Amino acid sequence: MSQVNRVTISRLTEEGKSRADDVVVTEFPLTIVLNNQELVTLLCSPQNLDYLAVGFLSSEGLLKSKGDIKKVTVDEQRGVVRVETEEENKQAGEMVFKRLITSGCGRGASFYSPADVGGGIKIESQAKISALEVFELVSDFQHRSQIFKATGGVHSAALYDTKSILIFNEDIGRHNAIDKIFGECILKDIPTADRILVTSGRVSSEILLKAAKRDIPLLISKSAPTDLGVKLANDLGVTLIGFVRGKRMNVYANDWRVVSHGWRTGTG
Amino acid sequence: MSQVNRVTISRLTEEGKSRADDVVVTEFPLTIVLNNQELVTLLCSPQNLDYLAVGFLSSEGLLKSKGDIKKVTVDEQRGVVRVETEEENKQAGEMVFKRLITSGCGRGASFYSPADVGGGIKIESQAKISALEVFELVSDFQHRSQIFKATGGVHSAALYDTKSILIFNEDIGRHNAIDKIFGECILKDIPTADRILVTSGRVSSEILLKAAKRDIPLLISKSAPTDLGVKLANDLGVTLIGFVRGKRMNVYANDWRVVSHGWRTGTG
Repeated sequence: MSQVNRVTISRLTEEGKSRADDVVVTEFPLTIVLNNQELVTLLCSPQNLDYLAVGFLSSEGLLKSKGDIKKVTVDEQRGVVRVETEEENKQAGEMVFKRLITSGCGRGASFYSPADVGGGIKIESQAKISALEVFELVSDFQHRSQIFKATGGVHSAALYDTKSILIFNEDIGRHNAIDKIFGECILKDIPTADRILVTSGRVSSEILLKAAKRDIPLLISKSAPTDLGVKLANDLGVTLIGFVRGKRMNVYANDWRVVSHGWRTGTG
Repeated sequence: MSQVNRVTISRLTEEGKSRADDVVVTEFPLTIVLNNQELVTLLCSPQNLDYLAVGFLSSEGLLKSKGDIKKVTVDEQRGVVRVETEEENKQAGEMVFKRLITSGCGRGASFYSPADVGGGIKIESQAKISALEVFELVSDFQHRSQIFKATGGVHSAALYDTKSILIFNEDIGRHNAIDKIFGECILKDIPTADRILVTSGRVSSEILLKAAKRDIPLLISKSAPTDLGVKLANDLGVTLIGFVRGKRMNVYANDWRVVSHGWRTGTG
């Protein structure tokens, strides 16, 4: 299914009104069924639906690794992904109801107790990155989004090591784009520890927690973080870099992973 | 409570690394309690929490008008808004569980049947706007967001008539900003029919439906719509204007409400 759709619009400029063809981003309702139980319907971009379903379930704590998954079936026609997991997780469906209510719309208040948040997550990775590497990586990231260029309507996310890109995904939802990254990592056995997550979107507490749960030590955004995002980054040991624009960036937490050497030796 | 928070960051530029004070947007967990039942926790900006709670309940179909509300109590300290409604709505809490799962995270598939969507909504308003009025209104809108200027981390929404602004609200969530507008309208008895909703955010099907439910004939965004947003705008009779930038705009649906006269007579 196409990620974009053609529409006829009226374009108004100072020259007047004219009919024009335009491209808008596709919004696709995807229902995730876990062990024959309908869990949730996400509005998403219709690409890599298996990654999205697996990444969503992982972010919600309903599966941990590829070993938990018995089968993933994508029915693109009907907009359904069915995920079957091992026996012992069958009760997860019961638990998710309460959690999802305080999740899709924003997580529950109890979530915000730092002691609870990550179940004691503390990212200890000694991975480092130079400022120059950050700029080159973000420049690379920005050049990849063809759909954003065509429609202005999607978020993108990518997993990098300090040298090159590993995975790139786009979606109308900033959460979905990141869930697709982690779903792809799970299904393809790509490790996330010591690696770098880049997002086009703002970094709220939910995004930060999603990354920390996958052991990501470095989170880079082109946009702004919230105060809770910054607080969680400090608490969980994640290096949070925001507002990377041109040759400037802000490091909001754990700046020891960003080294400033390499300014004059690079090609940038 | 402040909508922004001060943090100390490391700023890296080509000149090197320096410590700096910065301002990030506050992310606040707000729990909405309807008739003593905890419904949902939203992550939001801590301002106009009563508007947010009432607007959210209205968007979710749990209250229709000011007459449904017996009492709204804001406990900012604990992050709770309690809303009490008339007796006959007390069962709403039961119903919301299933709905919210397919709502905060994206609405359910059944939602996308055009016959179901608005329960037969068709906006018949004969309100019109000139292209010049759109540009002036969006220019005014963009100048109002002080928090966006400081932090880059919020969405804004406003209600206008063709002449002037009536209400303006900001929030870290694009849905929340719009719910605050409608909540304020409900609590202050401000009619929304024949009026104009302006949003900084993208127009997905959920945003379009939210506006149509409040009889809004004109929806203006600085950003992109999705294909389902465009489809719903056509189906429900909403004029959808997007990508208003400088002296250009795209009209995605029901362009008959936008008249192009006034180009040369205005001050813009």
